[in-house]
Amino acid sequence: MTITAARATGSGPPGPDPTTPETTPDIDTVRGLIERYSNWGRWGDADELGTLNHIRPSDVVAASSLVRSGRVFSLSIPVDENGPQSGGFGRFNPIHLMIRDGNAAATGTTVRDFYGGRDRWIRGTDDLLILPLQSGTQWDALGHIVFDGHIYNGYDATDVGSKGAIRNDIAKTRDRIVGRGVLLDIPRVRGVSWLEPGDQIHAADLDAAAAAEGVTVGRGDIVLVRTGQMAQCRDEGTWGAYAGGAAPGLALDTVAWIHDHDVAAVASDTWGLEVLPNETPDVFQPLHIILIVHLGLLVGEIFDLEALADDCASDGRYEFLFTAPPLVITGGVGSPVNPLAIK
Amino acid sequence: MTITAARATGSGPPGPDPTTPETTPDIDTVRGLIERYSNWGRWGDADELGTLNHIRPSDVVAASSLVRSGRVFSLSIPVDENGPQSGGFGRFNPIHLMIRDGNAAATGTTVRDFYGGRDRWIRGTDDLLILPLQSGTQWDALGHIVFDGHIYNGYDATDVGSKGAIRNDIAKTRDRIVGRGVLLDIPRVRGVSWLEPGDQIHAADLDAAAAAEGVTVGRGDIVLVRTGQMAQCRDEGTWGAYAGGAAPGLALDTVAWIHDHDVAAVASDTWGLEVLPNETPDVFQPLHIILIVHLGLLVGEIFDLEALADDCASDGRYEFLFTAPPLVITGGVGSPVNPLAIK
Amino acid sequence: MTITAARATGSGPPGPDPTTPETTPDIDTVRGLIERYSNWGRWGDADELGTLNHIRPSDVVAASSLVRSGRVFSLSIPVDENGPQSGGFGRFNPIHLMIRDGNAAATGTTVRDFYGGRDRWIRGTDDLLILPLQSGTQWDALGHIVFDGHIYNGYDATDVGSKGAIRNDIAKTRDRIVGRGVLLDIPRVRGVSWLEPGDQIHAADLDAAAAAEGVTVGRGDIVLVRTGQMAQCRDEGTWGAYAGGAAPGLALDTVAWIHDHDVAAVASDTWGLEVLPNETPDVFQPLHIILIVHLGLLVGEIFDLEALADDCASDGRYEFLFTAPPLVITGGVGSPVNPLAIK
Amino acid sequence: MTITAARATGSGPPGPDPTTPETTPDIDTVRGLIERYSNWGRWGDADELGTLNHIRPSDVVAASSLVRSGRVFSLSIPVDENGPQSGGFGRFNPIHLMIRDGNAAATGTTVRDFYGGRDRWIRGTDDLLILPLQSGTQWDALGHIVFDGHIYNGYDATDVGSKGAIRNDIAKTRDRIVGRGVLLDIPRVRGVSWLEPGDQIHAADLDAAAAAEGVTVGRGDIVLVRTGQMAQCRDEGTWGAYAGGAAPGLALDTVAWIHDHDVAAVASDTWGLEVLPNETPDVFQPLHIILIVHLGLLVGEIFDLEALADDCASDGRYEFLFTAPPLVITGGVGSPVNPLAIK
Repeated sequence: MTITAARATGSGPPGPDPTTPETTPDIDTVRGLIERYSNWGRWGDADELGTLNHIRPSDVVAASSLVRSGRVFSLSIPVDENGPQSGGFGRFNPIHLMIRDGNAAATGTTVRDFYGGRDRWIRGTDDLLILPLQSGTQWDALGHIVFDGHIYNGYDATDVGSKGAIRNDIAKTRDRIVGRGVLLDIPRVRGVSWLEPGDQIHAADLDAAAAAEGVTVGRGDIVLVRTGQMAQCRDEGTWGAYAGGAAPGLALDTVAWIHDHDVAAVASDTWGLEVLPNETPDVFQPLHIILIVHLGLLVGEIFDLEALADDCASDGRYEFLFTAPPLVITGGVGSPVNPLAIK
Repeated sequence: MTITAARATGSGPPGPDPTTPETTPDIDTVRGLIERYSNWGRWGDADELGTLNHIRPSDVVAASSLVRSGRVFSLSIPVDENGPQSGGFGRFNPIHLMIRDGNAAATGTTVRDFYGGRDRWIRGTDDLLILPLQSGTQWDALGHIVFDGHIYNGYDATDVGSKGAIRNDIAKTRDRIVGRGVLLDIPRVRGVSWLEPGDQIHAADLDAAAAAEGVTVGRGDIVLVRTGQMAQCRDEGTWGAYAGGAAPGLALDTVAWIHDHDVAAVASDTWGLEVLPNETPDVFQPLHIILIVHLGLLVGEIFDLEALADDCASDGRYEFLFTAPPLVITGGVGSPVNPLAIK
Repeated sequence: MTITAARATGSGPPGPDPTTPETTPDIDTVRGLIERYSNWGRWGDADELGTLNHIRPSDVVAASSLVRSGRVFSLSIPVDENGPQSGGFGRFNPIHLMIRDGNAAATGTTVRDFYGGRDRWIRGTDDLLILPLQSGTQWDALGHIVFDGHIYNGYDATDVGSKGAIRNDIAKTRDRIVGRGVLLDIPRVRGVSWLEPGDQIHAADLDAAAAAEGVTVGRGDIVLVRTGQMAQCRDEGTWGAYAGGAAPGLALDTVAWIHDHDVAAVASDTWGLEVLPNETPDVFQPLHIILIVHLGLLVGEIFDLEALADDCASDGRYEFLFTAPPLVITGGVGSPVNPLAIK
Repeated sequence: MTITAARATGSGPPGPDPTTPETTPDIDTVRGLIERYSNWGRWGDADELGTLNHIRPSDVVAASSLVRSGRVFSLSIPVDENGPQSGGFGRFNPIHLMIRDGNAAATGTTVRDFYGGRDRWIRGTDDLLILPLQSGTQWDALGHIVFDGHIYNGYDATDVGSKGAIRNDIAKTRDRIVGRGVLLDIPRVRGVSWLEPGDQIHAADLDAAAAAEGVTVGRGDIVLVRTGQMAQCRDEGTWGAYAGGAAPGLALDTVAWIHDHDVAAVASDTWGLEVLPNETPDVFQPLHIILIVHLGLLVGEIFDLEALADDCASDGRYEFLFTAPPLVITGGVGSPVNPLAIK
């Protein structure tokens, strides 16, 4: 499986194009892309925000002006035991437990167990989640991936310790994930219901989608790439190998595209954003290495883009106000999120 | 402790005013307010959204036009072990654990333990939360409170069962909590740094704040009521009895105000929104009963309003676009949230 | 599928034998057995120990004298993610997480994260379990089963509340599960490797096994009934439907046998002790109802009897000192346990 | 604070006594004791049992013969939210949650939520623990402590990885913790109710207690050292600084005593077995380093010895059969345990 040469011209330093079509990409390809596109130091040695720095206050104002219909789309799958996880990487589907429920209210034992036996009319219910932070619709924090002993901006891997990340945790982004969202609906442009597992999305595909949709991707945008895999899972009535198996997704040449367009964040409707199997037999998830560790790009996964895509197809407007603040998890290397596209 | 007569004239059915100043309010007062202001059936027998029905798509468009500066305020306290919980009601502060961390990446054991021994360059980190859903900045779902065997809109208490709420769960609001936010900064209007525990906020206080700030509260607004208690805790360097102890907050006569203004949601910077000790010695948290069970009002608690309040005081603009979507927790009777005020 | 008449003569009140061979057993059969064999009130109205009352101190002394070889057999399956649970009844396999590990010791971040930055040479590791108490080798507490609104000895079902059982919890048995253990190895007596799912074990089988093994079951004994299903799972390399699916196990007529022999506890190598499908199409797990709720019998499940069975076959001694104290879980309706057979 | 010279003559290699009275012990003292008493390699390079190797089958038989009265003592504190933890080292008290309870049985929602809506008479209750393995009465596994990059027998610290210990985990001891228990009741011998925090227990104290009690400690014994601190906490009605604060406990010179007596395991009624503050200002918990990492000694903590001690004082018999098998936690570096002393 080789890489097309469809990459847009990068703004990186001159040198050989690391994604040439003739050879099988490998760790050297990855290192080449890193050398060309790394953002380490770009926003200072103390930066922990990466490409979120592309979003400026004026972008937030401009994005807000895109709200025309007042329709709101929640892009999160349900947080419950029916999620896609099947045990890989130590992840499991969220476990929801009641601390006290309406049955206890009905029987009156709530008073005995929680109110010290004194009945003052009210009966509360309470609950609890045991929640792997990468189990469903989620942001990967910049501390989520380590390569060659480092996380984004050159911090040491050990800055992600037993108690969480003291650098590049998700809490740093608490008030930064607001801006213009753009949906690139790849299967719709290709005229299919969904891409098949293993289908690569190249820079040219992104350009083609933007052109077909009449949008221009630019600095500070949050780009949502639809592959349709979630629709396929629904159609088949099972998550199957969704979590960790073969998937359609971004190819290596999208690194330059993402970099050159000054994109702030990218999210998709798959488990891992990038195509699986990867183009690099010797490197697993090379885009995670390049994008998260070196571009400092916020990556979103398992976004449910179906209803939004239908609406965009319906009104022809693929841009919107996008808000997806993480939970403010101190030290978190990820966060569940309920992203909103507001049109 | 008696109730002032400052209540605005309600639009409810005629009858004796249940909040008269001469007597100690009690369960009959509560029942009187319920009779006057209950929204059960108002939006149909199958409704599970309550006052969120007040927000219309046009309100979302209008709220978006309030974004002028692009400044974004995150209203969540950190999700970590340093939160305010001290064990009451079975709640505890969130527990954050690493499934694998950067130390494992540094030593290389990640490959052994998670990648089947095959090294393909990448090293991921993953984490997990054990998270009581009412432990920090949070929405109470309409299934959170039971009174006389029922939850909002007359559903049976047992609809909140061992596996969560099959009615009135927080997931129903997934795409509905977007609109115009208004901050009513009570201590600033009173000229104090914060209200003291036990200080009551009456309807007249809400009106006074709105007037002083030059805002008009109306249909579909999400009202953020600042008491300053969180500032007090920070000033004292401890949460103290913040979770469950005495607190400033809304008094009974605000029920009519909230109802008559067609408010969509109310949130505050305290543990429980309403004043503690309550005005009703025989009823604990009467506003939870009236507002959540009968108005069907979305209630937000432990919102950090400090930075937002400073900004509003600085530019004199107390209205903004507000987005605070919950996690889409199936059956959840609450949800942690990172609310955003976007100015 | 009908019931044999092999039941030993009961000591219960006279009346029609509820387990006649001609009819399909149903809820009336269950009620008949309850009427005949219930132990409610037998050890006083305040009793929470049930048949554990059969064990006397002198039995403990006698059981200890059975230790001849010093060989010790642990009857617990591993507590880990590879257990038999597949989601039924809200159960899942135990989740083991590190609070801090040897990687943090190796990199030295333990000092930063846990010792306040002061290095005093030691590096501890710590861990945590998220553990459904009925997920593996376990005791069912007497509060584990409710029938007709009651638990053992007539306590109300609501005595098992949101915070656990205030009656009949497992902690009550903390120092009571020590005595003579007897293994009844049914497949070995039948000359097969294991019983097939659905195979019923009748009172006559228990008698036949005891006779073949040269043991006499009597007052205060803890009887371990081997079906071999765990061996079958290992042979097949998968748990399959072990948790909740078809299984060999005790038939209804063993109620009389267990009652008449004054057995203190019964455990087996299956998920639920009793045969599945049950003999009673309209009643699920009728033995759980009769034995736990009415006899007050301690029931053990998912015991790994393989190595012990081999040893007993080898030396011909099927009796031993047995200790299986639960964790002292306040309010627990079950407890994981590592039972020991000491020969 | 200096060390007495009361140490029994060691069987270790000749050399200077590392515990001389004139100097403040430090890391060199610790290294000296390690050099003298380390058991690395003693039971082979693949050993993961350490001093449990001292227990032979014949010891189990002999210990069983100590059972005379049939009285059984559970040495575990309750596993619940009222335990001694206060947040140190990331530990917290166990959290017990119901998956479904008797209220759901009473209201009947169990059928809806867990039995697919089909009522077949039974109503089960289920529960769950979130359980830090070092939070209460517990064994430290040999993988619990790292010193100079290694755990017991020279295994690398990284053998305790993100998924637990692949060497020296507690599961290895599943069938090995059975033998003769001996209680050394130090405060009773000294004629006090309890030792005060900071009180050192020296080898001479152990000898004095054994002499006063008429017992001889020997190969394979499990020694329970009572300080009385738990009695003090109960007397004061609070755990206070029990978990991690000042405590009575073993002094450095007990290393030789433990080693020379071929003790299999040592447990105590304190949080950490050894005296706090430690004798070594520059080394925290030196006995954890020496005993666990180098002797390979099983260490038990937070054992409730009060009722047992009263019984031993009453009948003058301080030896008994002792069983304390851990949960078989794969990879566990500790395990909760309900130890039994059977007299």
